[in-house]
Amino acid sequence: MPTRLTNYFLRTLREDPAEAEVTSHRLLVRAGYIRRQAPGVFAWLPLGLRVKAKIEAIIREEMTNAGAHEVHFPALLPREPYETSGRWETYGDGIFRLHDRKGSDYLLAPTHEEVFTLLVKDLYNSYKDLPLAIYQIQDKYRDEARPRAGLLRGREFTMKDAYSFDISDEGLDASYQAQRDAYERIFTRLGLEYVIVNADNGLMGGARSEEFLHPTPIGEDTFVRSAGGYAANVEAFETVVPERVSFDGLPAPVVLDSPNTPTIATLVDLANAEYPRPDGRPWTAADTLKNVVLAVAHPDGAREVVVIGLPGDRDVEMKRVEVAFAPGEVGPATEADFAKHPGLVKGYIGPWSTDGAVLGAESATGIRYLVDPRVVDGTEWITGANVDEKHVFGLVAGRDFVADGTVEASDVRAGDPAPDGSGPVELARGMEIGHVFQLGRFFAEVLGLKVLDENGKLVTVTMGSYGIGVTRILAIIAEDNNDGKGLVWPASVAPFDVHVLATGKDPAVFEAAEGVVASLEAARFDVLFDDRPKLSPGVKFADAELIGVPKIVIVGRGVADGVVEVWDRATGDRENVPIGEVVAALG
Amino acid sequence: MPTRLTNYFLRTLREDPAEAEVTSHRLLVRAGYIRRQAPGVFAWLPLGLRVKAKIEAIIREEMTNAGAHEVHFPALLPREPYETSGRWETYGDGIFRLHDRKGSDYLLAPTHEEVFTLLVKDLYNSYKDLPLAIYQIQDKYRDEARPRAGLLRGREFTMKDAYSFDISDEGLDASYQAQRDAYERIFTRLGLEYVIVNADNGLMGGARSEEFLHPTPIGEDTFVRSAGGYAANVEAFETVVPERVSFDGLPAPVVLDSPNTPTIATLVDLANAEYPRPDGRPWTAADTLKNVVLAVAHPDGAREVVVIGLPGDRDVEMKRVEVAFAPGEVGPATEADFAKHPGLVKGYIGPWSTDGAVLGAESATGIRYLVDPRVVDGTEWITGANVDEKHVFGLVAGRDFVADGTVEASDVRAGDPAPDGSGPVELARGMEIGHVFQLGRFFAEVLGLKVLDENGKLVTVTMGSYGIGVTRILAIIAEDNNDGKGLVWPASVAPFDVHVLATGKDPAVFEAAEGVVASLEAARFDVLFDDRPKLSPGVKFADAELIGVPKIVIVGRGVADGVVEVWDRATGDRENVPIGEVVAALG
Repeated sequence: MPTRLTNYFLRTLREDPAEAEVTSHRLLVRAGYIRRQAPGVFAWLPLGLRVKAKIEAIIREEMTNAGAHEVHFPALLPREPYETSGRWETYGDGIFRLHDRKGSDYLLAPTHEEVFTLLVKDLYNSYKDLPLAIYQIQDKYRDEARPRAGLLRGREFTMKDAYSFDISDEGLDASYQAQRDAYERIFTRLGLEYVIVNADNGLMGGARSEEFLHPTPIGEDTFVRSAGGYAANVEAFETVVPERVSFDGLPAPVVLDSPNTPTIATLVDLANAEYPRPDGRPWTAADTLKNVVLAVAHPDGAREVVVIGLPGDRDVEMKRVEVAFAPGEVGPATEADFAKHPGLVKGYIGPWSTDGAVLGAESATGIRYLVDPRVVDGTEWITGANVDEKHVFGLVAGRDFVADGTVEASDVRAGDPAPDGSGPVELARGMEIGHVFQLGRFFAEVLGLKVLDENGKLVTVTMGSYGIGVTRILAIIAEDNNDGKGLVWPASVAPFDVHVLATGKDPAVFEAAEGVVASLEAARFDVLFDDRPKLSPGVKFADAELIGVPKIVIVGRGVADGVVEVWDRATGDRENVPIGEVVAALG
Repeated sequence: MPTRLTNYFLRTLREDPAEAEVTSHRLLVRAGYIRRQAPGVFAWLPLGLRVKAKIEAIIREEMTNAGAHEVHFPALLPREPYETSGRWETYGDGIFRLHDRKGSDYLLAPTHEEVFTLLVKDLYNSYKDLPLAIYQIQDKYRDEARPRAGLLRGREFTMKDAYSFDISDEGLDASYQAQRDAYERIFTRLGLEYVIVNADNGLMGGARSEEFLHPTPIGEDTFVRSAGGYAANVEAFETVVPERVSFDGLPAPVVLDSPNTPTIATLVDLANAEYPRPDGRPWTAADTLKNVVLAVAHPDGAREVVVIGLPGDRDVEMKRVEVAFAPGEVGPATEADFAKHPGLVKGYIGPWSTDGAVLGAESATGIRYLVDPRVVDGTEWITGANVDEKHVFGLVAGRDFVADGTVEASDVRAGDPAPDGSGPVELARGMEIGHVFQLGRFFAEVLGLKVLDENGKLVTVTMGSYGIGVTRILAIIAEDNNDGKGLVWPASVAPFDVHVLATGKDPAVFEAAEGVVASLEAARFDVLFDDRPKLSPGVKFADAELIGVPKIVIVGRGVADGVVEVWDRATGDRENVPIGEVVAALG
């Protein structure tokens, strides 16, 4: 049975919705696919539901091919498992919490690691039951601070989340690879360009973790890639460490006056003006060592002041620092933090003074001192002398000061070398469309998922977690496939295969259109039939372009000559086709 | 690809779950269909998800046949529309409420009338757009006080809810009938016995309202039916009103002493002992008029004391009274209520005293007096005389007292006449599986859904609401289709068409089983294949009986003779079939 526009729940809109920030949101609303209910919360209209179902069907097929079995968990879950894992707390304001009439705490689950772990614990108890991969396609909730960009970042959204259970690390690697391969097949079938980037593991501390990013200028993530094939998100980028240099024969450090040097730039200018290098090479920001004071709130409640030393031509990238200190929360040091450490002379902080070491666990202040990996032994620096209006020149790492360790705190820049030697990197923007992640034994340990191994010994299961944002993918496909007139769906996810328009008022034309529709349906095409009797061809064309079904068949005056027009939405090509050959022309 | 038990997420259980109150719950958990997550909240395992998908597919087909279009709303909805309709308040403790990080109020929707109304208001504006029927299959939430009986009454449950929009009452009737017909087709295809009962409209006050009840001893609803085809739920049953009797020539009422008559039974005994009827017929409870004092809390905050008079052989049925006074909330009068009405002499209340009328809007007390429809003019009663230890005999309705109206307050009993003259009724228990309901213009009025009619005039749309409990239906089918050994699914919703067992250890048998499975799959049967190599036939048989696929094929020693056994789960019949004829035997 064709879907007839005379009797379909659809209203295309001429005006853009006021709240729409991105093209996909604007067009999906205007073309009658979705409708906003609250910030980040949408209703699905018939057209949108069809596209979503097609994406889900492709995901289901590839999950089945990967040996995963479908289950379905509630969105409403009790607090206890999330309390045990610690996430009830660590999610902070990011989730919806509620309680029932008896006062028991619940949440609307943002992801389901805990309850999948408990389900397997409930039902399985032997290595013979493993490996196991189970998944669901389910509506999830996050109380985003700024739900924006339509379906790209919603508060209610559909995800496919899969979880694997293995007894060994090798098993986990195989399960991980099976899901990773399935993801590649899924995104390929959906026609979605993707880059697989090494991802930071964040709070969960597993082993391998990769994100599938779709390169797009509206992406929320910045990632790093080289022409030679390296890709990573900014948090996971590893700085190439220079060779250490011998400091034999380097002169001793010298403390020099440096009034009015509140910035690296003013310090470099003063150095070049007052203290030029003997060999005439100008000082640059890269010759200075910038020391940034941060404070870390540790999960146990302790607050720690930390100093990070990095070349003066680099900035601290907080996203990278946050990962380095997780699960602690890191931020700038406050006046109160400085007050507790009078040994730090603001504006002139450095690891060394003429009275001895200033920074480092063993120093006068006892403050932990971490440096950028580029600050290798033997490098010489201009840095604060811990005396007002004085800097020290020629301070040598490994000789005059020793850091407590290195930290990936500096920003990543185009031209930085890729850690795998594949050449300089560039920065690009991307949107996360999938994530594969070796959880390891964290959840199994805290929730007690153990099985008997071949020797009858209880062993903790190792797990992986694999997510695809279904509704986000739909929005990204819409974002990538449109023109000034509307959506242009790829055939794999289009709401219909063919959009047939009957134009004009001639009953013979409408009768011919019915025949075309019947022959298309007989050939198993899914047909949207614009049989509205009183609209002008222009309105019907505009609606067809807005809705974006890939193939459009215009049944009009040509019927008298036995022809209809077949219109390719993507290319705009139109060609006359004899009525009897429409099915073949669309084949 | 067959589903192989060597690699499927399934664990059958030997033990009944401790919390299971009904057979369906017990078997669905034991056979690996569902798993409890919290009271009234379940996860769906692969087998359960398959049955649910089959039920949903049947519902979708019939909704399409009824001309309804599928949409999908969020579960998480903002407070405002429900505030406007008044239901944010009237739901009381029955819904889950929550708020987001900004403090805005939300609910987990228990039903979606408000937002469907607003969606149509948003998109449509003309009579030309109507009629319209839209539906969703979606997870709903109710914070039940006592979630019980597994899926039969959950806190998270799946419903199909449809809504119709029409411009005229005739249109609504047609839309209602289309959904009602679809429901009959759906329940017939699911093999579910149903009775359509007239239902009370409850709070919403529309026109037609019918429930589809499935007769079952575990049903939560009592309904009334006659052999002649009448059916109604108890709340909607209408008492047959006796003809009024002439009171010409009846004697005047007499006040008589009646000490120690705290109950109707003691009153009747005293009457028969002390004041026998002149004609010798004994007094019975039916000769007495019982007056019950209730208090109604009206929505505007007013509290009203009301007295209901009914024959002494009847009891007040609170469910019926609640409907009569909705949206007010009715309950027994408290001591405080009595204290405000000293004119009521507890234990001896009646509408009349020697000083004049005691009950009724125009009486000394001013208390509204409503009577059972059987208390017609001319009937004679023994009732309280409003004096301690005294009753009045021969008090005649319509002569000695006049009520303010009638009320359907009495219980319904087997043998009561059906209001349509189709004979005496019997009482049966049933479970609601569907509800079709003419909402009328309530939601359209409060939410402002108007469209232009043919004359360009704005008119308020009239609506219907149509619900089917998907997960409840699944449980009811399980409840009705099982035996001592497990589930016995009807073919229309079975998780698989055929369950093939390979028994023993002979590789030739397993190879033959692979061939049988391949030929069944080629014939488009959906096959569950028990290919587990090391289990005894007894374990495999027991699992097959527990899981309940309707047709089981046992591939075993008979393979040497070219035969397999085909086992009908429902009848228990087993027959040998040549391997090459298995497909035909199952056809």
